[in-house]
Amino acid sequence: MLQVVKSALDAKRIILASGSPRRKDILNQVGLKYEVLPSTFEENLNPNDYSHPYEFATDTAYHKAREVFNRTSRDEIKPDLVIGMDTVVVCDGKMFGKPRDTNDAFKMLKKLSGTSHEVYTGVVCLAPDRVIKFHERTEVVMAKVADEIIEGYIKTGEPMDKAGGYGIQGLGGSLIEKIDGDYYNVMGLPLHRLCVHMLNLYHSEGGGK
Amino acid sequence: MLQVVKSALDAKRIILASGSPRRKDILNQVGLKYEVLPSTFEENLNPNDYSHPYEFATDTAYHKAREVFNRTSRDEIKPDLVIGMDTVVVCDGKMFGKPRDTNDAFKMLKKLSGTSHEVYTGVVCLAPDRVIKFHERTEVVMAKVADEIIEGYIKTGEPMDKAGGYGIQGLGGSLIEKIDGDYYNVMGLPLHRLCVHMLNLYHSEGGGK
Repeated sequence: MLQVVKSALDAKRIILASGSPRRKDILNQVGLKYEVLPSTFEENLNPNDYSHPYEFATDTAYHKAREVFNRTSRDEIKPDLVIGMDTVVVCDGKMFGKPRDTNDAFKMLKKLSGTSHEVYTGVVCLAPDRVIKFHERTEVVMAKVADEIIEGYIKTGEPMDKAGGYGIQGLGGSLIEKIDGDYYNVMGLPLHRLCVHMLNLYHSEGGGK
Repeated sequence: MLQVVKSALDAKRIILASGSPRRKDILNQVGLKYEVLPSTFEENLNPNDYSHPYEFATDTAYHKAREVFNRTSRDEIKPDLVIGMDTVVVCDGKMFGKPRDTNDAFKMLKKLSGTSHEVYTGVVCLAPDRVIKFHERTEVVMAKVADEIIEGYIKTGEPMDKAGGYGIQGLGGSLIEKIDGDYYNVMGLPLHRLCVHMLNLYHSEGGGK
């Protein structure tokens, strides 16, 4: 949907404050021009300080974006838009991060197997005169699978750097019975809503089709 | 989930009876070894002969798989599994194929905009002693978008070779508000259920982890 604001977007300095290759893949998919500057924000917020995991994710996203915005604000070409994001996996009210080790991965996947969980991505877009904050929720149903299936999956190594211990865009995709919501949100970037915000932000500038 | 039958699968001659690059991407994602032999079946079945579009899709899938199975059954190494698939997009009971031209693409996308539609993939797996048939349904909600957004999308050329006039895995992904079901089914291959069938088919052979 960004074709109508393409010339406006192409003239902007847009920064993705994340080093996630999955987020880059998704932004590349819609043809956006942007730079990648991973945030150095320490990600030391305490989930217990928030009444809901999506608030934690959105606040983490804010701090990631803010750090990159501040760092680049004295550049010769100042940023027009810095996008920060954070994704959390929640099952029965409990937040699941990346597994600490293979035992932890087994426990996570055993817990997710045969039930539904939620994936939340908090997004903060910082423009010079505006702050856009939102979060997107997707429900994911993982099939009930035998322990040997979980063990076989862990041996591939894929679970170890993924929140919740699985990657829907990899081997883990075969474990997912269904989702309800934005698929790209599960990969870490709520594509549709981010595009709607960028469209609204730059549509008044014309841009041409 | 196929890691537990990997050695059994690796010893099989598995054929994908489809030339779709999207289906290949999905099978590659789960590490399956297979050949691609697109079916020469003419796809001349009449949707009006079926009481539901998924029956049409499943029957088309059957004929695609059967043609490839027959063609290869005298090979020195006979096929162990031939997988045929067909995907249809249905809105208000009407089947949407690939757009005939840009006007047709506009009409399709205008119809899908702001409402939900269904994507069905019919799958037929032919083994020497077995026929597996199933279909998978995913509901897709496309955002309500202005005509200029649809026109901008059509100008990219992406809609022209896609059933329903959009590609969820491309620029069209930004138009999709949410899905309910298997994401990969919308791309043309119901990954989870196909893997479950392959697991059941070869699990008794042991295969090792």
